[in-house]
Amino acid sequence: MVSLDDIRLAQRRLSGVAVRTPLILCPRHQADRRLYFKPENLQPVGAFKLRGAYNKIASLSEAERRRGVIAFSSGNHAQGVAYAARALGVRAVIVMPETAPRVKVSRTAAMGAEIVLLGEGGEEQWRVRAEELAAAHGYVMVAPFNDETVIAGQGTVGLEILEDLLGAGTVLVPVGGGGLLSGVAAAIKLSRPDVRVIGVEPELANDAQVSFRSGRIVEFPLDQTRRTVADGMRATRLGDITFAHIRAFADDIITVSEDEIREATRRLALGAHLVAEPSGAVTFAAFLFHRQELPEALWNVAILSGGNIAPETLRQILTDDPV
Amino acid sequence: MVSLDDIRLAQRRLSGVAVRTPLILCPRHQADRRLYFKPENLQPVGAFKLRGAYNKIASLSEAERRRGVIAFSSGNHAQGVAYAARALGVRAVIVMPETAPRVKVSRTAAMGAEIVLLGEGGEEQWRVRAEELAAAHGYVMVAPFNDETVIAGQGTVGLEILEDLLGAGTVLVPVGGGGLLSGVAAAIKLSRPDVRVIGVEPELANDAQVSFRSGRIVEFPLDQTRRTVADGMRATRLGDITFAHIRAFADDIITVSEDEIREATRRLALGAHLVAEPSGAVTFAAFLFHRQELPEALWNVAILSGGNIAPETLRQILTDDPV
Repeated sequence: MVSLDDIRLAQRRLSGVAVRTPLILCPRHQADRRLYFKPENLQPVGAFKLRGAYNKIASLSEAERRRGVIAFSSGNHAQGVAYAARALGVRAVIVMPETAPRVKVSRTAAMGAEIVLLGEGGEEQWRVRAEELAAAHGYVMVAPFNDETVIAGQGTVGLEILEDLLGAGTVLVPVGGGGLLSGVAAAIKLSRPDVRVIGVEPELANDAQVSFRSGRIVEFPLDQTRRTVADGMRATRLGDITFAHIRAFADDIITVSEDEIREATRRLALGAHLVAEPSGAVTFAAFLFHRQELPEALWNVAILSGGNIAPETLRQILTDDPV
Repeated sequence: MVSLDDIRLAQRRLSGVAVRTPLILCPRHQADRRLYFKPENLQPVGAFKLRGAYNKIASLSEAERRRGVIAFSSGNHAQGVAYAARALGVRAVIVMPETAPRVKVSRTAAMGAEIVLLGEGGEEQWRVRAEELAAAHGYVMVAPFNDETVIAGQGTVGLEILEDLLGAGTVLVPVGGGGLLSGVAAAIKLSRPDVRVIGVEPELANDAQVSFRSGRIVEFPLDQTRRTVADGMRATRLGDITFAHIRAFADDIITVSEDEIREATRRLALGAHLVAEPSGAVTFAAFLFHRQELPEALWNVAILSGGNIAPETLRQILTDDPV
């Protein structure tokens, strides 16, 4: 399990690399229920993933760094690894599905990574292919979430929230593979056990909620999870390491509907002037539409995990009727 | 003329009211030419206008505050005055043209201001009507830009930039009526005369540039200025006070095309994940497309003055082909 010292070490490594994103007050808040956004969409790669990837690569030996790193990702993890590897002068190979959003593929390539595009398949096939490449070339695998060093990097988001908002009562965290929730929940509960940490995921991909509540990792078919507009949350199962952290540190996991995600994304763009990808907006959706399921708190924080939305998706969401 | 002490007093008044917006590094910057955004679109009213309006109303006597304030505005100034007046417990009447963006009218009303909507006309007619109402009811007029106390409030943006970025070389400022440029240029030149302050306006509404270069205030017909997509910049002339400040403190004013404004708005949304209104994005357009006209600097700042864009305008801009 990740310790507070691990997360503090990650924070020192990330100083001057990741943006120390500010807390931004939600413009139209209620006096008795205030909300801050933690806008990780303002990171250089448009998502928090840079934190874990950089912490992992910075922890490698000189010999490992010389061989290079490899990752498999349909999106933001790819950009995080590519950015971190370039910053540290390390070669990066990224295995991506052909179905990944075009904008994410091209931006990853633009950061100097070598891209290996694979046809249809699931996480398992991509992981196997990445592992074959890693074995053949001696690359170090940078896992997207199921790795303690990656989790410690994501946990720096939690430390920053505690430093910037002493009165934080509830912190809402998006859940895909669970790396961000694992790290943030560990950082917060190991420092301030009174602060509530709630994971949020789409109804259509609520494998983490089912796993959390049943006490064992439940896997969903990719055909189900890929139906959500939250394309960063189509991971079909938690890892054993993220599951252990979430069981130990998270207070609950709740779900939001597709309409709620779209409406939250719309309001973020037009009201708060922040572009979030749907996966990044699930926490605001939970704040807006699921008050009864959340602990009451004067000061709430919604982590916006990323902003890499396809232009056509954003355009469609702006066309939606307000909920 | 506004003094540095005036701006520092405004800064103390605004503490805890206006958001101290962070400088955000432009994600894809060149090593020899870096850019920070000063995102005033993240203010509670979605624009910097809150600063000047609040500073003005906070400077009034008790007797004046009891009578209330009035303003005429097609947009962000209206919201700034309404928000500031509510924060100070002062009644606000806002005179707006019927042609103002719907979203700006409804948000101003939602802040508790009384709205007086007027039919077609120009700034001059609205000002006259507002002055009639002010005289009849004893309201204090809060001018949108041509007022030293308002200018001092906007100048706090400049102080914050200097505090946060010691190495700032060039600061780009949108110009409508000139209040923001007046305040920012005064704040910067009275502290750090080596830092360049450049105004940016649309080619279609470049009355400030023509005035600056000819040495006298030139007025444009509203039929011309209203053609720009930058609806916050349709003011047809500088005021005598803003003109005097801009002559004294600004280094230059340059212009950008409509296509450049749209492209900058698009890239801000999709690349930097910040929603700016076209008027707010002119500075990024200047940075992207007018390098030759700008002083060379390692560290540049583009003030994004606001984010209150109509959903249909943003949607259309997302449909544009990349430039």
